[in-house]
Amino acid sequence: MKDNPTSSAPGRSGGRAARRASRNAPLADHLRPIQPGMRGGTYRPLSAADMQRIHETALDALEQIGLADAPESGVRYLTGAGAILGEDGRIRFPRALVEDTIAKANRSVTLMGRVSANDLTLSGTRVHFGTAGAAVHMVDVDGRNYRESTVQDLHDAARIADQLDNIHFVQRPMVCRDIVDNLEMDLNSIYACCSGTTKHVGMSFSDPEYVAHGLELLHMIAGGEDKWRERPFVSNSNCFVVPPMKFATESCETMERCIEGGMPVLLLSAGMAGATAPSTIAGAIVQAVAECLAGLVYVNAVRPGHPAIFGTWPFGLDLRSGAMTGGSGEQALLTAGCAQMHQFYDIPGGAAAGISDSKLPDMQAGWEQMCSNVMAGLSGLNMVYEAAGMHASLLGFCHESLILGDDLIGQALRCVRGIEVSDDTLALEQIRSVCIGGPGHYLGTDETLARMQTDHVYPALGDRTSPKEWDELGKPDLLRRATARKTEILSQRAPARLDPLKDAEIRERFNIHLSG
Amino acid sequence: MKDNPTSSAPGRSGGRAARRASRNAPLADHLRPIQPGMRGGTYRPLSAADMQRIHETALDALEQIGLADAPESGVRYLTGAGAILGEDGRIRFPRALVEDTIAKANRSVTLMGRVSANDLTLSGTRVHFGTAGAAVHMVDVDGRNYRESTVQDLHDAARIADQLDNIHFVQRPMVCRDIVDNLEMDLNSIYACCSGTTKHVGMSFSDPEYVAHGLELLHMIAGGEDKWRERPFVSNSNCFVVPPMKFATESCETMERCIEGGMPVLLLSAGMAGATAPSTIAGAIVQAVAECLAGLVYVNAVRPGHPAIFGTWPFGLDLRSGAMTGGSGEQALLTAGCAQMHQFYDIPGGAAAGISDSKLPDMQAGWEQMCSNVMAGLSGLNMVYEAAGMHASLLGFCHESLILGDDLIGQALRCVRGIEVSDDTLALEQIRSVCIGGPGHYLGTDETLARMQTDHVYPALGDRTSPKEWDELGKPDLLRRATARKTEILSQRAPARLDPLKDAEIRERFNIHLSG
Repeated sequence: MKDNPTSSAPGRSGGRAARRASRNAPLADHLRPIQPGMRGGTYRPLSAADMQRIHETALDALEQIGLADAPESGVRYLTGAGAILGEDGRIRFPRALVEDTIAKANRSVTLMGRVSANDLTLSGTRVHFGTAGAAVHMVDVDGRNYRESTVQDLHDAARIADQLDNIHFVQRPMVCRDIVDNLEMDLNSIYACCSGTTKHVGMSFSDPEYVAHGLELLHMIAGGEDKWRERPFVSNSNCFVVPPMKFATESCETMERCIEGGMPVLLLSAGMAGATAPSTIAGAIVQAVAECLAGLVYVNAVRPGHPAIFGTWPFGLDLRSGAMTGGSGEQALLTAGCAQMHQFYDIPGGAAAGISDSKLPDMQAGWEQMCSNVMAGLSGLNMVYEAAGMHASLLGFCHESLILGDDLIGQALRCVRGIEVSDDTLALEQIRSVCIGGPGHYLGTDETLARMQTDHVYPALGDRTSPKEWDELGKPDLLRRATARKTEILSQRAPARLDPLKDAEIRERFNIHLSG
Repeated sequence: MKDNPTSSAPGRSGGRAARRASRNAPLADHLRPIQPGMRGGTYRPLSAADMQRIHETALDALEQIGLADAPESGVRYLTGAGAILGEDGRIRFPRALVEDTIAKANRSVTLMGRVSANDLTLSGTRVHFGTAGAAVHMVDVDGRNYRESTVQDLHDAARIADQLDNIHFVQRPMVCRDIVDNLEMDLNSIYACCSGTTKHVGMSFSDPEYVAHGLELLHMIAGGEDKWRERPFVSNSNCFVVPPMKFATESCETMERCIEGGMPVLLLSAGMAGATAPSTIAGAIVQAVAECLAGLVYVNAVRPGHPAIFGTWPFGLDLRSGAMTGGSGEQALLTAGCAQMHQFYDIPGGAAAGISDSKLPDMQAGWEQMCSNVMAGLSGLNMVYEAAGMHASLLGFCHESLILGDDLIGQALRCVRGIEVSDDTLALEQIRSVCIGGPGHYLGTDETLARMQTDHVYPALGDRTSPKEWDELGKPDLLRRATARKTEILSQRAPARLDPLKDAEIRERFNIHLSG
């Protein structure tokens, strides 16, 4: 994607400025210290026995309790696969059916971008961070205000995310509240995201009937149904259950149509621990795992091997108020524990992290977003959803916070990369030559200089100046710098993410709210 | 320490207010969801083979490279124990000497408070968070200013830390720059801390000659040398090496005197990766481990079994500027990797985390402080030094940030506590009774209510209100709330941490700068 200016850095003019320019220049992608899809898994909150017990309990729950409210079509699919419809209307899942499904489900899912460089391969402990959610507010940092989110806000978020290296996918993070018709809202959400980024996009449909329209739009963007089916660059986030242990009837129908249309699905179980899921971390994980296993049986009954993401997304609750909270240590543990269960099944999965309860991108937001994000990364979660920009326990989205989140996630990814141990990195010979007859320090040694870009992640907006330098620079404010970066990105002419001819065609067919 | 108001919560007046009061009331210490000394260890960035290689390389470095600049007394101690003084003046350590020392060193160290409830037992993966450092500036949040730190600032920090549950010890975090005489500064630092808190205090002496004076003061505070030796409530932070691989001659003499005086020592090796230590994470850990092993041999040669903390504190460097940086992912990995090496040796250890490079307690500070703190906790680091209040890459200390750090560390400790898996927490029967013939949700179930205080860590200042509530409350600002809390703590009459008679006696003997 990028050139490697370090190899052609000019040696002119005394060196210091040139050296600094060279050091500050971007590296070729394959040399960058952090990448999408690095492997986590060094953090394991659950023991092997713990995972086995969670699995067994989830199987018990599926076999004995089952799920209510499947649509008629779902009952046919599921009973056809071997599930049992009880007289109480609940569908129960024999252990063998669940175990067979796990055995034959996809071990890997590729979520495609509109350019292949943005493809994400989900498997094992490979980690990707991105946006998601259904915020209804935009956070206006300057005025400390919450206002309703619009389609322009969504498009801007996609354009910003497109420019941020550590935001690997763009699941629609907010609702376009300026579009009252739900079908128009869904179609314009697709348009707003796909016209802002070539990264993989996540969407959600409000009604099963809308899927066909959405697919028509996606076919147009792709340049035909065959091209879409070859490289589906949008996945559907499917809240197929209403926890506890009930299918979301309409959403299941939506899911069936997405599967038929060749769209990868996220099997999203978003229980709230203490309200719609047990209050204990282990119990909330059990229920989410059980629900997603039911979803996995469902998907594989509709179309064996269809790409599906195991979306155990249990959320935390503040039990004092009964309100959702996403910034707690409990939330970080819920998400990391789920990541381990995905690995237990060897099935690609995702969960939510990076949520802040704070209303603004302040210190609280920083510690909350890092806590769950870094733990999700270290646990090897394939898809870290909601990783940047989310405030007020998911009610508000903030562009500045998205931009700062790129820095934050950069450091989290550095932690995911971990500690390399080799003869070179152990550095015995370097220690020897520095200490015995050497300079007595490592500044400027070949070994130090060689690694200064490939080993280290430097923040874009995070400040590392000394108090004196900071004072001389006029005490730059982090949020102001983020706002300036936002303005810079958005004031650039929009990148041609959609071919103009295609765009005109789309605008003729659909009521596109964004101005052209 | 505290009563348990939940057991005597009044049932009067309709219940809601009483219930809320009961839920918000503090729990008895043994019921609190988080405690000092909880066990980490679920995050392990190094494999068993990695640790073995780091160990072997450190042994090679000690045997082949050794350390220069030991004081005469140190040469006697070390060669007496079996180390070899080379013609180049370096002391080299045969593998057997190092291995024997590891075998016989303390597996556990108790750092005592002035009250036994504040004692900290360091062993295995037990985690404690506290302050440390030598900041030269105070951060004035209101005016966004850096000014020189004073003895009053230090005393205030101790008083604030004394009130914060998740700050488990008070190592002196800043230098009293208003006291020009170094001996007076050291003695007043001890006084400022011990008169502010009964938690364990960490100190540092500027000169070996000062130790005797410091001990005299400590004996007076304790009520006699015998009482001091029985329960030494101050440890000495000993920068016994000047990395790479040189003893700090004077500091070694200080250490000898502290050991003779019965004071636990922190063997502090503070290399900077890329300047005074190799730039690679593994290499910086190797060197720090080698240096601390040399220190361990030294301590055990002076007095076998003397309480010593293995203080591998490698710091990060921004290689573009050559300046120290502590807020990076690399720093978090350095610290977590060191924690694993302490466990490899089964020797109590400490390292630095929670450092922010940001000048203010902003979003950057939040993400930086959480990243290394939560990883240090999950890795099972016994002593997490510099965990709260540190800004500008250790140059500035901030009282508001210390207060907010208590909230931040509270969530990190919740993560350390981890996920409990048992029949109760797996909650199969609860899921069954809620879903089949039950209310269809878990709000208000006995199982949910029973755990709302024992399982969950609620922030003191972190905000969880909805945007609407937040607006109605006048959009409270996190930093303003922290300042208000600071004022509240400091405006309370100082707790009688020193007996008034004893205090008068101390003031007669020493030039105490704090007003009485």
